[in-house]
Amino acid sequence: MAKIAIMGHGTLGSGLAEVARVNRESIASKLGEEVEVKYILDIREFPDSPYADRFVKDFSVIENDPEVEVVVETIGGTKVAQEFTRRALLAGKHVVTANKELVATYGKDLLAIAAEKNVNYLFEASVGGAIPLLRPLFQCMAGNQIEEIAGILNGTTNYILTRMVQDGASFADALKEAQAKGYAEADPTADVEGIDAGRKICILSNLAWGKEVAPANVRMVGISALDLKDVDIAASAGYRVKLLGHAMRMADGKVAAYVAPHLVPESSPLSTVDDVFNACLIRGNAADEVMFYGRGAGSPPLPR
Amino acid sequence: MAKIAIMGHGTLGSGLAEVARVNRESIASKLGEEVEVKYILDIREFPDSPYADRFVKDFSVIENDPEVEVVVETIGGTKVAQEFTRRALLAGKHVVTANKELVATYGKDLLAIAAEKNVNYLFEASVGGAIPLLRPLFQCMAGNQIEEIAGILNGTTNYILTRMVQDGASFADALKEAQAKGYAEADPTADVEGIDAGRKICILSNLAWGKEVAPANVRMVGISALDLKDVDIAASAGYRVKLLGHAMRMADGKVAAYVAPHLVPESSPLSTVDDVFNACLIRGNAADEVMFYGRGAGSPPLPR
Repeated sequence: MAKIAIMGHGTLGSGLAEVARVNRESIASKLGEEVEVKYILDIREFPDSPYADRFVKDFSVIENDPEVEVVVETIGGTKVAQEFTRRALLAGKHVVTANKELVATYGKDLLAIAAEKNVNYLFEASVGGAIPLLRPLFQCMAGNQIEEIAGILNGTTNYILTRMVQDGASFADALKEAQAKGYAEADPTADVEGIDAGRKICILSNLAWGKEVAPANVRMVGISALDLKDVDIAASAGYRVKLLGHAMRMADGKVAAYVAPHLVPESSPLSTVDDVFNACLIRGNAADEVMFYGRGAGSPPLPR
Repeated sequence: MAKIAIMGHGTLGSGLAEVARVNRESIASKLGEEVEVKYILDIREFPDSPYADRFVKDFSVIENDPEVEVVVETIGGTKVAQEFTRRALLAGKHVVTANKELVATYGKDLLAIAAEKNVNYLFEASVGGAIPLLRPLFQCMAGNQIEEIAGILNGTTNYILTRMVQDGASFADALKEAQAKGYAEADPTADVEGIDAGRKICILSNLAWGKEVAPANVRMVGISALDLKDVDIAASAGYRVKLLGHAMRMADGKVAAYVAPHLVPESSPLSTVDDVFNACLIRGNAADEVMFYGRGAGSPPLPR
């Protein structure tokens, strides 16, 4: 029996708790042992949750319980999340996260603590949501020299661009629609200005090339300055406008990474990736181009 | 220093040897140790190869050398390949293969030997060529109950169908063209009759559901009976004809698997997978649909 704690009970944390509950048997058969959610950390109350008796408000309960082997951080941001991640690792617990901001900014430090304590700090879900991407890149493609990475890494902006192309919506209207559907936050800056995609291309670059690529050194141009004329001209020439995180290995061995709207030819598999879907194209010198595609965010479609 | 032996020096075996040579440094930095190709087994002579001094004709040299930790089997077929795989595993060596016929037919036995000898029998490249697919399915998606798998798993037939749809070529002409380009073998039966795709959907099903799905129990319909009228009617209705390996979990927990031409709607990401490319769509109850895309076969684009 592996006991885990989930920090945060928003969309991500509650979705994970639900997956652990509904898929309990199938997970146990694959892992060879059951996974039990022992604690959920949240300052709010959830009396109707099937986990109602597992909620705690004090992180030290998790920190000091030697039975908890794995802590899942779904708090987000870099303040509380960083402190609790650090303390969990120092307490000898593996930490799993989807927090791209934390990983992109403090990943190096946190990985160093994890290595020192001989535990794992894993962040597969920080890029591309539920798409298996980081482990395939780092482990399965280890025989490759990675040459280039180009990804539609932000679902919100891809949704907005899709509405502009398919329905002729203006940027402002498409953004409002995305906000109404819950795809964009009240303050959409991190999405529409390419900051979120920028954090993700940093994480991918670090894994692909083992060099630290920090968000502060990555030029990020978003889609807020795009208008309908741009997407129409692109379409008439056989291109789709897509916001790509883009990184490549230069001839001198250095890595160049940036985020910007790109003209993607209709023949590219990236061109048909629409709505909130994400996709990442990775070019290696042995495998050539491979692409990983799926939902970048949202709640799981459970149950069945 | 990890020492490996490669059995077979055809397209696959020589391509792998070249990857190991050109990417030696990058592989060593990711693995933490160098990988050395100590032997290459082939009955032919390759005096101009950079590995000319490593060739051996007698498998027992590899079998009896305790320095060889990993044996890569690129012989193909189920006769010699099976015998040497079995003996390598029994000698306590890990075996890596791309041999879908061997894995689909005798995988269960070989995995049992591997487990007994505490070594790995790994076959990522047996499905989808260089696309990371089996490990992402088995490991990264372990939190999912897998509901459905649908894949363009055979590059030869996908190339033929692409020529029919895009250029109006007849099946016979497209097949001849594929043979001229080296995409189809002189005897194309295993490809065009869906047998190759059938072996691959068996391997995927076994990994997804932990149940043995044997090729003998899988209905396989290929594309040899398709004509231009079929692909035209499909296109006029907004569909592409694709040969899919298809497997799904039924309500009673059983698995249904088969190979047949499908009408794939143009809105599906599978519809734009053309030429010799492969792609596999996997639907899980947590991740929803994810797709893996890339070259299903061929030589690596090295060097750089």
